[in-house]
Amino acid sequence: MIYSDTIVALATPAGAGAIAVIRLSGPEAISIAEEIFHSVSGKSLLKQKSHTIHLGHIKSGNSVIDEVLLSIFKGPNSYTGEDVIEISCHGSHYIQQEIIQLCLRKGCRMAQAGEFTLRAFLHGKMDLSQAEAVADLIASDSAASHQLAMQQMRGGFSSEIQRLREELLNFASLIELELDFAEEDVEFADREEFRKLVMRITEVLKRLIDSFAIGNVLKQGIPVAIVGEPNVGKSTLLNALLNEERAIVSDIAGTTRDTIEDEISIGGIGFRFIDTAGIRETEDTIEGLGIQKTFQKMDQAQVIIYLFDARQFSESGENLKVEIETIRNKYPQKNLLIVGNKVDQLTEAEKQNIKKQIPHLLLLSAKKKEGMELLKKNLLEFINTGSLKNNEVIVTNSRHYDALIKALEEIQKVQYGLDTDLSGDLLAIDLRQVLYHLGTITGQVTEDDVLGNIFANFCIGK
Amino acid sequence: MIYSDTIVALATPAGAGAIAVIRLSGPEAISIAEEIFHSVSGKSLLKQKSHTIHLGHIKSGNSVIDEVLLSIFKGPNSYTGEDVIEISCHGSHYIQQEIIQLCLRKGCRMAQAGEFTLRAFLHGKMDLSQAEAVADLIASDSAASHQLAMQQMRGGFSSEIQRLREELLNFASLIELELDFAEEDVEFADREEFRKLVMRITEVLKRLIDSFAIGNVLKQGIPVAIVGEPNVGKSTLLNALLNEERAIVSDIAGTTRDTIEDEISIGGIGFRFIDTAGIRETEDTIEGLGIQKTFQKMDQAQVIIYLFDARQFSESGENLKVEIETIRNKYPQKNLLIVGNKVDQLTEAEKQNIKKQIPHLLLLSAKKKEGMELLKKNLLEFINTGSLKNNEVIVTNSRHYDALIKALEEIQKVQYGLDTDLSGDLLAIDLRQVLYHLGTITGQVTEDDVLGNIFANFCIGK
Repeated sequence: MIYSDTIVALATPAGAGAIAVIRLSGPEAISIAEEIFHSVSGKSLLKQKSHTIHLGHIKSGNSVIDEVLLSIFKGPNSYTGEDVIEISCHGSHYIQQEIIQLCLRKGCRMAQAGEFTLRAFLHGKMDLSQAEAVADLIASDSAASHQLAMQQMRGGFSSEIQRLREELLNFASLIELELDFAEEDVEFADREEFRKLVMRITEVLKRLIDSFAIGNVLKQGIPVAIVGEPNVGKSTLLNALLNEERAIVSDIAGTTRDTIEDEISIGGIGFRFIDTAGIRETEDTIEGLGIQKTFQKMDQAQVIIYLFDARQFSESGENLKVEIETIRNKYPQKNLLIVGNKVDQLTEAEKQNIKKQIPHLLLLSAKKKEGMELLKKNLLEFINTGSLKNNEVIVTNSRHYDALIKALEEIQKVQYGLDTDLSGDLLAIDLRQVLYHLGTITGQVTEDDVLGNIFANFCIGK
Repeated sequence: MIYSDTIVALATPAGAGAIAVIRLSGPEAISIAEEIFHSVSGKSLLKQKSHTIHLGHIKSGNSVIDEVLLSIFKGPNSYTGEDVIEISCHGSHYIQQEIIQLCLRKGCRMAQAGEFTLRAFLHGKMDLSQAEAVADLIASDSAASHQLAMQQMRGGFSSEIQRLREELLNFASLIELELDFAEEDVEFADREEFRKLVMRITEVLKRLIDSFAIGNVLKQGIPVAIVGEPNVGKSTLLNALLNEERAIVSDIAGTTRDTIEDEISIGGIGFRFIDTAGIRETEDTIEGLGIQKTFQKMDQAQVIIYLFDARQFSESGENLKVEIETIRNKYPQKNLLIVGNKVDQLTEAEKQNIKKQIPHLLLLSAKKKEGMELLKKNLLEFINTGSLKNNEVIVTNSRHYDALIKALEEIQKVQYGLDTDLSGDLLAIDLRQVLYHLGTITGQVTEDDVLGNIFANFCIGK
């Protein structure tokens, strides 16, 4: 597919900075740049090699808008596969606007969200799942989400899906061929081989579908609810976690962190701490708290930290045991972490008693930042990061997940058809469904509205 | 001056975007890049030509941080005059941080604010006033402020100052030479020629100093106070002005305007409208308003728009005449614009009567947006844009202004010395002062704290 128009957009974040980059892509990119760019060397852009940089001035008539560096990328060796020009100008909002306006006057069209990447996909520079990974990569804010996006962008599971789909396509065409010779009762498609392929595909699909649970959580960050009575030190604990991590970030002057207040990366994994400030004072059981909001938040969480004030621990810890039991019964699926705070004010004997009464609990002092490392270690242990570390393929995109689920349903129908000696024409229908759903992942099958949805979530300029 | 260390910083605005650019400069820039960058072509960066772009991966050990484009600029043909590397990566905050951290681990130092431009200055790539213009250019938000910064960056008046300074330096050394031969009573420096040069310099300095009044206003935006009683339509007028201008901006989707709410560019000139919401109702004279705050704001303004409700205009307009007279007496230096609003509800005869009673007034309807063009035309007429259009040199920087004032004082002492046949040694002292102050403008004379002050106002990465 060839686009006949040339698009332009700001590729760097909006706002003032040292430099900004304006990107053009399309058949007229170089000739439009030639009209507005006056090289210091006096040479024409049209004669320049790909992947070279040129110093010069952007002029509107006789008026100089800026001194810029201009990079040339000639298609197909460019991001979009088309001729691409990148203008690196001074980062004033005014200059950015003037240059973009000038490009528009010279015949460019304003790029739509994600249109550069859409063109890259349509020119075969990447498949659809790789294109989607570009947006994930830009949005990534922890080592884990970054690694997942990077893996997907570099091919990830889509190459495997594509290979399996091609094998399946081969069988599908043989089976369709059989239909043309139906009266002769021939079998072009070796049923035994076919059966093996179907089983292989089923296995791969199941594995990928299973990986989504961890993939989605790693991408979004693991939701952790810190619950407990007032004044047990929930905020202090959160701040203690935040402060330590922030210190690393603030080593770099001039960078700002635009993640939400209570998202923290521990060991490269994002944790989203959910505020449960709504718990009111109570005498005995957690049931007594009875605040709908807090339970909702606990429902969302994957990990619940139950924080208590270790100074108020009675000899037997009876109250606490009841509360823990109540939570465990209510949320049997959730990872529960029992944490006693303010232990800096306890004697060694008191600590030992608590440990004896409540097994598997953590004691710390959020204020003095004692025991924080152990807490982090425990949080990380809840997450099965094994597959991440082993570079196993993980699905993170819910569109892919849906397509995989649908493909699995259809391949199971094919399997059933094979088992029950279903006629070739019915088998062919199920096969086409499998091929369709697998094709939507890599973009070999596309529908305009699906493409529209995917790229609408991109930023302009990408 | 050669720096031995290599600096790194994010050059694009903070935040997520399609791409971000990380810039390295210094003797190790290319070798550090070579350590972390793995070209797709497999070729070493060390052998690549200047001004070329390379596709590859940034790796930390075996882990891929991003697929990037890397640009090489070899000193002295670079922005700083040193070897420069620009890494164009995906614009995620996480990736930006990881790449910068990696560069720091490999031996880079975090760049200080403006340090790239400071190095450019120290390597003779630009003089000091040009370096200052870089910051002005980035901050420019109207055609006028942009043009002023661009003019200054391209040499502006600093080349003229430099030339005059060199001529003066020549005379100064001749006069110092005379001192060495004081006993022989020789005159190496032709006093007549010298006198002519001093007059020429005086003229240039006076012209530049005069230009600062307009230059400063154009750079900062022209302050306009809209005053008047409540409900005469001040906000409606401001909105009418804002809306029209904003419409142009919003043609470009995805761009945001980060100027303050009430700054408007009219005909390329920035106008800062000052809110004077504090005026309370009064029966007769402006004196009666008596609100300190409003007067303060009128003090700051260069243009005062006095807005009244044309429907409440009495037959003779006596009240209004008194108020106008009061303002004129209080602010004889300010440009005053008398504007009658809500004329859409007046008959033609009523309009004619107002015009007859109050000469040089404007009638408009802010709500219906009638008469707005005439108002803008009048605002522009207050500003002497002639010198801007004629590409005359305009001083906009208060540091330059101070230096020019001081240089003028000293050159007038030299003039006086020549007129009164002052001895050579005293003349030499005044001359050195002139040379010093002129030298501070272009940076031929620099003091560390002055440099520090200038570049501290830059953003990191420039």
